[in-house]
Formats: sequence, C-alpha cells, structure tokens
Amino acid sequence: MSGGPLEGVRVVDLTTVVVGPICTRTLADQGADVIKVEAPGGDLLRTMAQGSRHPGMSGKFINFNRNKRSVCLDLKQEGGMDAMRRLISGADVFVSNIRPEALARAGLDYPSLAPGHPRLIHCSILAFGRGGRYFNRPAYDPIVQSLSGVAGTFARATGEPRFVPMVMTDHTTGLIAAQCIGFALYRREKTGRGEAIDVPMFENMASFVLSEHLGAATFDPPVGPSGDNRLLSPDYRPLPTRDGYITVGPNTNVQAFAFFDAVGRPELKADPRFASAAARTAHAAAYFEVRKQGLAQKTTAEWLAIFAKLDVPAARYNSIDDLLEDPHLADTGFFRAEDHPSQGRLRRTRVANIFSGGNRDDEAHAPLLGEHTRAVLAELGYADSDIDRLLASGAARD
Amino acid sequence: MSGGPLEGVRVVDLTTVVVGPICTRTLADQGADVIKVEAPGGDLLRTMAQGSRHPGMSGKFINFNRNKRSVCLDLKQEGGMDAMRRLISGADVFVSNIRPEALARAGLDYPSLAPGHPRLIHCSILAFGRGGRYFNRPAYDPIVQSLSGVAGTFARATGEPRFVPMVMTDHTTGLIAAQCIGFALYRREKTGRGEAIDVPMFENMASFVLSEHLGAATFDPPVGPSGDNRLLSPDYRPLPTRDGYITVGPNTNVQAFAFFDAVGRPELKADPRFASAAARTAHAAAYFEVRKQGLAQKTTAEWLAIFAKLDVPAARYNSIDDLLEDPHLADTGFFRAEDHPSQGRLRRTRVANIFSGGNRDDEAHAPLLGEHTRAVLAELGYADSDIDRLLASGAARD
Repeated sequence: MSGGPLEGVRVVDLTTVVVGPICTRTLADQGADVIKVEAPGGDLLRTMAQGSRHPGMSGKFINFNRNKRSVCLDLKQEGGMDAMRRLISGADVFVSNIRPEALARAGLDYPSLAPGHPRLIHCSILAFGRGGRYFNRPAYDPIVQSLSGVAGTFARATGEPRFVPMVMTDHTTGLIAAQCIGFALYRREKTGRGEAIDVPMFENMASFVLSEHLGAATFDPPVGPSGDNRLLSPDYRPLPTRDGYITVGPNTNVQAFAFFDAVGRPELKADPRFASAAARTAHAAAYFEVRKQGLAQKTTAEWLAIFAKLDVPAARYNSIDDLLEDPHLADTGFFRAEDHPSQGRLRRTRVANIFSGGNRDDEAHAPLLGEHTRAVLAELGYADSDIDRLLASGAARD
Repeated sequence: MSGGPLEGVRVVDLTTVVVGPICTRTLADQGADVIKVEAPGGDLLRTMAQGSRHPGMSGKFINFNRNKRSVCLDLKQEGGMDAMRRLISGADVFVSNIRPEALARAGLDYPSLAPGHPRLIHCSILAFGRGGRYFNRPAYDPIVQSLSGVAGTFARATGEPRFVPMVMTDHTTGLIAAQCIGFALYRREKTGRGEAIDVPMFENMASFVLSEHLGAATFDPPVGPSGDNRLLSPDYRPLPTRDGYITVGPNTNVQAFAFFDAVGRPELKADPRFASAAARTAHAAAYFEVRKQGLAQKTTAEWLAIFAKLDVPAARYNSIDDLLEDPHLADTGFFRAEDHPSQGRLRRTRVANIFSGGNRDDEAHAPLLGEHTRAVLAELGYADSDIDRLLASGAARD
C-alpha cells in the first residue's frame, strides 16, 4: 500500500478546462487529496468536449479529472464562500486559473489569504505575468500559441503559421505549475512557511520556444539568424516511403554511415558535408534531401526491418487509434479497464512515471459534478442540518 | 537574498542534449547546485547546434545549461569513476538520460547505488519504460513524436504527419522529470528515504496526447471517433486576414455573439449550431468556416483594434524574432543583458515563474567544458596534488 509521494497533501482546486486541471490531476495522480471546487454550471470541459455517455461527463473531462473529488459551491452566495474559506483553512495548496482581478474581488488572492494561512501554498496560473501590459487580458491556448512563438515556428518551417493540434500551452504550463508546487512543498518543509507562486502561460511558453530557438540571437549582437535550422526545416517531419511514412534518426556517425549504406549512397560517408554531427547540422537541408530521396525507394515495413538490423533509430508514426494497439504500451499495462460507477466501462491510462518509493495505488474515478459535496462538507465539520440548509439555498449543490 | 526553493539541494547531472539538461536547468534555476558531469568530448549540444562565438559554446547549449557548473571526467578511467562516485556520495539527486544497460554496466543504476546512498533520489529519464518491448531501444525526439501520436495529430488535421518544430517530447519530458524530482524531495523530507524514479518519454507523451485526444474512445466500447475534433480541424490555426493572420478565441457566448456582430453575421446568434459553447464545439468545422470568411475582410491591425474594444480574445502571431520586441516581455524584464565571462554580451531570458518566498538571485553563467573541474574536485576533498594527477592522466579535464 502506498499513497504516492504527495500522500497527505490537501489541494483545493479552483480551476477549469485544461491548464489548471492537468496541474491538479498530476498532484492527484501522485497522491494528493484534490478537492475540485466547481460552480453550479460545472467545469466547462464537462460539456464543451465531445464524446460522452451522459451529459456533463465527457471523455476529455474524465481524463483530466480522475483521482479528484468534486464539491459544487456557489461562491456568489455567502454560504458558498464560507465553505470555500473553510476548505482553504484545511488545505496545503490552493490552485486557481481565475483572472487575477476576479480572484482579488472574491478575497481569494494571496494578500487576502496569507495572514490567516501562513503555511498555504497559493498557486496562480495566469495567462500573462504581473507587471506587464497584457496582465489581466483574457487568453486561451491558441492565443498563447500565437503570442509565444509556437505558431511562428510553423511559419518559419512551412510558410504558414499553425497550432500544435493540442492545447499545448495549457497542458505544458499546467505540468509546470505542478512542478512549482512540488518545489514550494519541499521549501515549506525546510522553512515552515507557505508562499505564492505565479505561473504565467505566456512567459513559460516564450521561455520554452526561446530556449530552443534563440540560438545565434542568444548573442548580442546576434552571430546569425535566430532559430534551430534543423528543427525549422520544411522536411523535419516523417518522410514518405513507397507506401506511407517513416521517421529516422541517424544522428551519430555510426548511425549516419549505416544509413548512407542502406540507401545506396556509401560515397556520402566521405562527403565533408556529412562527415560529422556538426557538419550534418550545418548542412541540415542537404541531409534531409538525401533522406527524402533514399527513403522513397522502399516501403515503411521494409525500411523498419533494415534499420532494426542496423540499429538506426526508426519508427512509423502512430495515429491516436494506433496507440490503443501499441505492443509496448500493452506490455507495460498502460491501458487499464475501469468500471466507472456512473459512466460504465472506461479505458484508463496509467501514470507514466514510476516511483520506487511507491505510486498512489488507491486510484479513484473522475467525479460527477458535486458528487462529494456532502462528504467534504461533513469533513469540514458542517452538521447534517447545516449541509441541508446549504443545499436548500443553492449555496452548495450535489 | 534568496537561494530559491531548491536552495541547498545538490544535483549530479549526467545528461546531454535537451531532455536531461532542461530538467536540471529547471532545478538549477530554482536554486539547486547542479554539477554537470561531461565526458571529454562534452555535451553534444555544445557543438551540434549552430550559432556560437567560440567552438563548444552554442547559443542553444548556453540556454539549456545556465546556472550549472561543469566537471569533465573520463568515466572509462578508474580515477574518473572514483570522482563520480564521490560526487554522488555528496548529492541529493542524480539524474541521467543514459540508456539503462549502459548505466548498469557503469554501476550507476539504482540497485548499485541505493545500498550506500539511502537518501539518494535517482532519476532515470528513459526513452521507453521498463517492462515493455521498446525498453533500451535508442530514441530521439522525432522518434518519440512519431510513436506517441504527436505526428499523428497533424496527420488527422492536415492529411500529412508532421513534427512540432521543437524537440517537444524531450523538452516536455525533461520538465516532467524536474516535477517528479520535486515530489521525491518532498517525500524524502517526510520519510528520510530517497528513491528511484523512471521518467519514460514515450509513456509521458502518449499520456499527453491521449489526455487530450482519447475523447469518445475513453469509453469502451467507444461512443464515437477518438480525437478532439475542434483541435484536429484543418482550420485550427491563425486565420488569414486581408494582410496577414489573426488568432481569435470567441469561446463564451458573450465573446462569440460580439464576434458575429463584428463580422457582420448577427443572424448567427440565433442559429442553433452556434447558440452555446457545446453547440459550437459540435459544429466546429462550420464555426471555423464562419471565422475564416469573416476575418478575411479586414487587416490584422483593424481586427485587433475592433476585438480589443469588444473584449474578444485576439492576437497576431509572433515570430521568434518578434518575441525579442514584445512589449509585455519588455515590461516584465523578461530579457536581460548578461556579460558572460568567456562568451561576451548575451541575451538571457529570466525564469518564468515567480515564488514569493524568493527566487534564486545568484544567477550564474553557462559553463565552459570542465570549467569547474578543479573547484569541484577540491570541494570533494581531493588534494591539489591528486587533482594534478587526475588531470595529467586525463581522468579529469579542465
């Protein structure tokens, strides 16, 4: 039996859609007791995403909200706010992705809460950081993909800006927020004190893009154009074979030379453009062209067999549906059958990261809206009659 | 003065390129003392990426390795391995992205180290998790983008598989590894014990893709096709205006209805396909078409002015170079001038996340290969004469 590395950590989660829910799901997957506080309409992701057996329980909501409990409170009513304050009093961590002005109006910003809760870790996931002119502007993932340079990397590569077909900036920033909370939990063990953490999407993603692509513009004045030319090549993609696509990674000399032999171009081993990793990077466009011409000659399956023998990294690409049949994922028990108490038989992915000190082993289902309102209010010390009154007034719902 | 949340944590970093270095840079940025152990050839990223003033100090290397110290050891020599073992004896965390077989051969796997180092946190960043048939296969970022479904999401959206033009799976998995290390540091404060953590790229990215796109296939049997149809629409991208592109996010009813008015289609407010967020998601293709036709009518600047007034989220896309001039990033001091002791004047991005308990404020430059070999060996207790001997034999280099 193990509760995971975050066993005993209580998190109050006032977040919606993806950026906050992936943060708190990560904490929950690793053992934290996450109480998701939802407004009477529920997290928008319950209904906004397609694919559900019952209204309000979309597949996407289920995946981002497993292992949490749901409490439904109307924070516009005093009774709802009172329950919220009691929840926070018992919490180690409070996470929100509410716009900062609204959070302050509700009295849930750090300056309001810190005096009464010196051990609280208060994490604000923001679109834009404090002190800059975009602070408090609304933003969604595609806005941040546009401003942070993600869409711009596609424009450099293909001539046309494009988004990653995922809510990549939400998802990545949420994972980073969980990371920051872990660091603050560690520091609190040392100092006894909580703190506020600002996790801005725009700055995190600008940092992500620029760490990879500032390149020659890291120097002032720049020593060349910004951008990693290998990653920004139009041909940085799975390349066509006779019947499909293949990805190859002949990066070391041994791999590259084996590749040249395999595609019938042994003379390139002596070509100064391709004789070292640095030379191949400098001549990325020419190297991609060699790959492209060579790979078109055989089928994907033929190439995979050849490259497996030569120990040249190579792979076909998996569609979303292919993943469900991937043999390695099957070997490692990545997909598990779950009997959800209200939604029936589900596919559940397991936590990717393995802790030898024990992962959480009491996994729980994604909750219905307000499924745990009664239980959690009772834990907070509300008498049954008080809970009835809150439910009757609509300040709490179940 | 603050050392950041990870002040006092010592990390031995046996990683190269991106997946490991972004993990340890994150720890270093947040205050850990990270000692990067490099083989005599140095981290491949020093030379593989273009854009440098001096050989071995590429801009990309500098960005992923700030705030670390570099010790150069030849682990094939007994003197080098001895120094490595002494380093690990004084460390809280050991991170590697070495293939597991090679790590075990060197005696640096967890079973070899745990008995002598019960408090050590041993993080292995793997391409593929243990127990599956791909374990120990070599992999690079494009291989993982292919296998994990990232490239497949582009194939669904556009008909052609493509990579994100960044080493997204390296970068994301490295950020997750730092997150896991934070959780293990927290647990060690509670239990007094270290542990091993496996962080596999493939499983983490499969989890990333499927959390977003399992959708209707979360249910068994599936209640519809997998995939979030909104994100997988061919038109999920910045849309053309009269003179460029714009990204809009009219997601709530208020925003969507203001958008319909702005593009001269007020009748759509009463159209059942567009009357609610759920309806607009279900009719994503039609909604994108309305956006596309509407946005083509004016210039990007005209639309930005209009949508700012209407409080409809909207943005132009930034190129990599545009980021250097972004006014919000300027307001928040995101770029700073750094005088690197050996590489001259640099642009340095600041840490995105702000901790009220204090961020690390003694930031340090990215190191030359072996820049700190002498200093670190002296800290480990080596006498000057022993250090001279190690350097003379080539077991250590500076």
